[in-house]
Amino acid sequence: MDFQFIGQEIYRLIENLYPICRSITGDGFRTSMRILKDQIPLELHEVPSGTQVFDWVVPQEWNIRDAYVMNSRGEKVIDFQKSNLHILNYSVPFQGKVKLAELKEHLFSIPEYKDWIPYRTSYYKANWGFCLSQKDLDCLEDEEYDVFIDSTLEDGHLTYGEYLLEGELEDEFLISCHSCHPSLCNDNLSGMSLATYLAKYLSTQKLRYSYRFLFIPGTIGSITWLCLNEDSASKVKHGLVVACVGDPGNMHYKKTRHGNAEIDRAVAHVLEHSGDGYEIMEFSPYGYDERQYSSPGFNLAVGNLSRTPHGRFPEYHTSADNLDFVKAESLADSFSKYLEIINVIENNKKYLNTNPKGEPQLGKRGLYSLMGGRKDASHFEMALLWVLNLSDGKHSLLDIAERSGTPFSSIHEAAKALRDCGLLIEC
Amino acid sequence: MDFQFIGQEIYRLIENLYPICRSITGDGFRTSMRILKDQIPLELHEVPSGTQVFDWVVPQEWNIRDAYVMNSRGEKVIDFQKSNLHILNYSVPFQGKVKLAELKEHLFSIPEYKDWIPYRTSYYKANWGFCLSQKDLDCLEDEEYDVFIDSTLEDGHLTYGEYLLEGELEDEFLISCHSCHPSLCNDNLSGMSLATYLAKYLSTQKLRYSYRFLFIPGTIGSITWLCLNEDSASKVKHGLVVACVGDPGNMHYKKTRHGNAEIDRAVAHVLEHSGDGYEIMEFSPYGYDERQYSSPGFNLAVGNLSRTPHGRFPEYHTSADNLDFVKAESLADSFSKYLEIINVIENNKKYLNTNPKGEPQLGKRGLYSLMGGRKDASHFEMALLWVLNLSDGKHSLLDIAERSGTPFSSIHEAAKALRDCGLLIEC
Amino acid sequence: MDFQFIGQEIYRLIENLYPICRSITGDGFRTSMRILKDQIPLELHEVPSGTQVFDWVVPQEWNIRDAYVMNSRGEKVIDFQKSNLHILNYSVPFQGKVKLAELKEHLFSIPEYKDWIPYRTSYYKANWGFCLSQKDLDCLEDEEYDVFIDSTLEDGHLTYGEYLLEGELEDEFLISCHSCHPSLCNDNLSGMSLATYLAKYLSTQKLRYSYRFLFIPGTIGSITWLCLNEDSASKVKHGLVVACVGDPGNMHYKKTRHGNAEIDRAVAHVLEHSGDGYEIMEFSPYGYDERQYSSPGFNLAVGNLSRTPHGRFPEYHTSADNLDFVKAESLADSFSKYLEIINVIENNKKYLNTNPKGEPQLGKRGLYSLMGGRKDASHFEMALLWVLNLSDGKHSLLDIAERSGTPFSSIHEAAKALRDCGLLIEC
Repeated sequence: MDFQFIGQEIYRLIENLYPICRSITGDGFRTSMRILKDQIPLELHEVPSGTQVFDWVVPQEWNIRDAYVMNSRGEKVIDFQKSNLHILNYSVPFQGKVKLAELKEHLFSIPEYKDWIPYRTSYYKANWGFCLSQKDLDCLEDEEYDVFIDSTLEDGHLTYGEYLLEGELEDEFLISCHSCHPSLCNDNLSGMSLATYLAKYLSTQKLRYSYRFLFIPGTIGSITWLCLNEDSASKVKHGLVVACVGDPGNMHYKKTRHGNAEIDRAVAHVLEHSGDGYEIMEFSPYGYDERQYSSPGFNLAVGNLSRTPHGRFPEYHTSADNLDFVKAESLADSFSKYLEIINVIENNKKYLNTNPKGEPQLGKRGLYSLMGGRKDASHFEMALLWVLNLSDGKHSLLDIAERSGTPFSSIHEAAKALRDCGLLIEC
Repeated sequence: MDFQFIGQEIYRLIENLYPICRSITGDGFRTSMRILKDQIPLELHEVPSGTQVFDWVVPQEWNIRDAYVMNSRGEKVIDFQKSNLHILNYSVPFQGKVKLAELKEHLFSIPEYKDWIPYRTSYYKANWGFCLSQKDLDCLEDEEYDVFIDSTLEDGHLTYGEYLLEGELEDEFLISCHSCHPSLCNDNLSGMSLATYLAKYLSTQKLRYSYRFLFIPGTIGSITWLCLNEDSASKVKHGLVVACVGDPGNMHYKKTRHGNAEIDRAVAHVLEHSGDGYEIMEFSPYGYDERQYSSPGFNLAVGNLSRTPHGRFPEYHTSADNLDFVKAESLADSFSKYLEIINVIENNKKYLNTNPKGEPQLGKRGLYSLMGGRKDASHFEMALLWVLNLSDGKHSLLDIAERSGTPFSSIHEAAKALRDCGLLIEC
Repeated sequence: MDFQFIGQEIYRLIENLYPICRSITGDGFRTSMRILKDQIPLELHEVPSGTQVFDWVVPQEWNIRDAYVMNSRGEKVIDFQKSNLHILNYSVPFQGKVKLAELKEHLFSIPEYKDWIPYRTSYYKANWGFCLSQKDLDCLEDEEYDVFIDSTLEDGHLTYGEYLLEGELEDEFLISCHSCHPSLCNDNLSGMSLATYLAKYLSTQKLRYSYRFLFIPGTIGSITWLCLNEDSASKVKHGLVVACVGDPGNMHYKKTRHGNAEIDRAVAHVLEHSGDGYEIMEFSPYGYDERQYSSPGFNLAVGNLSRTPHGRFPEYHTSADNLDFVKAESLADSFSKYLEIINVIENNKKYLNTNPKGEPQLGKRGLYSLMGGRKDASHFEMALLWVLNLSDGKHSLLDIAERSGTPFSSIHEAAKALRDCGLLIEC
């Protein structure tokens, strides 16, 4: 597989999505879903404002057309048209003259990074505001400003995209990514784009598990989906929340609430044998939508696989999380690791050694050296011996890979060879 | 709470108890119990000599009035009136002229610390003897001495003090301290005094567990209590043996025989989050009365929480374990840690998240920031999320505190806030 | 016991066995068994060629009388009479003129060690060949050679030796050593000789377990024995494969497939308390006959206790694994450790404290110091306390030794003292 090419494709999709002003509801989200639909047969769901979803209520739909702050000389000192991060996401409509002192209560900046615009939201409290760089904030003169926010907050819908790839089993592998951020590349366009290409690739494969892809607004989206799809949720056996997969940092995996679920072990195994640096982090109830999937009433085995995790890179939730910050090579590497993990889960079966008493004679089957007396068995011979020794119906191939310290791919290859000559049958 | 003041009070009680010549039986023990009775409504028990208690027999009661060794010039070269450590504890009565060579067979000193008088006992073998400093021993001239020991060893009673503070539950928390040492401050007056003030304080509180305080002679006292109170023993769910809590060293906790009992975890948690140095030691069948509580026929979850453990400070069992060796500040610190441990045990309940599917919307309840996009949740928000996530009926608050690496107090505070707004109910 | 003397005896037996050309079948193997029979009443079994043993077939019997390669000047440039390693073990008979280029396809040497002859076999593929030092190989001139191999490969038998020492229990302790290598001392004459002397010594002892000693050809021998003795195999509770026990390196123990079997713990305990360096290695399905005993259909708790393990010393499977490489002192040390392990297994029983409530009064039984107040209990007193505390029917003496960090021998001695005074009874 040409991972370099796929990395470039994922990057290109990020470029297409970048200019759109997304939020947890509204046309920006819908437009983004339609762009993904060009790649995969995404189903779009529209959930009406006011729908009760567990403890929450689907909020009014927010749309924005323009917003600015203009000084007395008629200059737009803050202009939504230049960056959609300038508007406090979910700002209520507003028009009026405001003195600097009062205006400042509605302005957000990052003192530590004077050139960057922060990303701030106020979904669940009616408010208006602007985000701007500290440098621009410092230039504002003590005068009166024209503030104009042409937004609407009205009954409408919460939109989400869903794509189910049916496999041999009803058991599901959930791939979920929040898709509600405006012009921010690593968090979360990288996740949306990687998930799209993962879906596209897997749709060409014969699959054991069914794969469900969710493109949802953060928090309210996963809560809405869980509330409307309790049955589907109960089928989820493994899951990954995809986000921040485009930066050049090492992979970081946050474990599921279970802590030792099959997906936790598969990810740890792949990262351990990758030859690259990585970090495994314990579960915590903070983070992305794994928070909701891991709530005690669902307790799904959903982890979060990122490169540099949210909040750990200074560019996080600022205008610096832009098209320069994510790299095609990093996206390619993330993609290949996601695929390898899926490969482990797909092939992690238990087998029975059909000749369990003593070793079978591998030499006569062409699987073992016929020259005796040498120091070591080959890597492949060792994999064969491990699979035979532990295929007692209790150990899965991942168990065997872990115990033997052998890459899953070698164990899987050995299992195939043994199955082909009748020494192994699936449990 | 004014811990400094309490530390001074505990120290003052030690001062009062210091001059008395205690032993495992006798009037010194009784007098000490009466001093404690001024503070707490202690019940005194008298168990007759000769009573069979499991494999042991309650010994005869020992009382001593005077003892000395006098040289030919009429000088008392060893004088019980100067220090009650001078007498071998439980010495039989004796009067006679003894040459130095024979006398030496009855003298005990510490060659390494020439100024200190050792503390030695001979409870279960009839013997007489004197303890003295190496310096004094070296001065004894080769002559004949008048030895006089005005003691009695007669049928009488073994005395112990008991105080039961009844809580909501019949399940008990045992606080036990040996109270049989003569003028020795850290071992064991510090334990007796701290336990007394703990009882005094807890008697003013609403308690979930019942608290039983035992002031007993070492070994024979706990065996006697166990033998006469098998029913009460079976109610003990947690316990601590209190001793050596007044020296300036770090806290040391010796685990229960169980090794991972609730009390073991509570102590480890409090010490870990204390910010002070500490050491956790594995159980061993040597030490104080936890030896008896941990015998296989009882197997109670009783640990031993000290500052510097017995035998690890050179002053141990010598005249140097005096009023200078224990400090009010150390006693205050020990007291506060005992209280904090009790606080963990009292509040270590399991709760149920009443909104287990997805997170509840904390923002609308004023428990969560309404401004989105920031890097981190606050410490309190994290505690709320942890409690909600793990309150599935399987995890206690201590489980949650341990898994989240959060101090119990924060987890407890979060649980209270969630309970107050109906998001949590007790299991 | 005079371990030094036993080490010399074991060495002498190695000397006797050294010159014989053994293989997995044939007269060399038989002759070797007869030499062992001088020491222990070994039973010899003969299994006909062609017998199906699980997935394998007992091969034809191989015997060799002479073999050489002669140059045009009539000089034997390779001569079986000088070292039986020169012949590729199981070479088919051959006689003919062969040019150097073709001859080289049948020659084996070790480029890294120019003076050493390698040991190579071709049991299961008809082939002929010679092994020689790289130095000798380099001297061969480009000419035609007379090749002569006077071997036979005919229907006959596979021979193995077996000795069962019956103990009190039917449960068995298996000691197995492969005995099929020609003139190689550490691998495997050291194992054969140590096992022989172990059997000889144990036959003089009262034993709890029954001990089965197997002297078998590698792989095909253990498979044959397992196939013909499934009932006996099911009685094996502990086992050790003995090999490479004569070199001066540290002991290495490869765990059983179980990983925490009683034999694994006994070996680890003895090595830990030996004061010598050692290494514990995880199970792997490569190695000696533990591979077969550990196949999933048997899953016997058989480990492998060596000094330097196979393949980890450069002399392995070369002419340098000779009489200089193994040492009487190393054999003596290995022997003493095997015995100590057997001693642990023999005495690893569970006891019940007959006075489980509180400690029994050890002082009145002469088992405990009667002088109180000292800092520490003695080592023996501590062992007594540990045995009493943990003898609740759930802990074996090895459990107690492990938990207390005390050598098994001390725990065992304490248990005997307590049993003698009625404080302990066997479960």
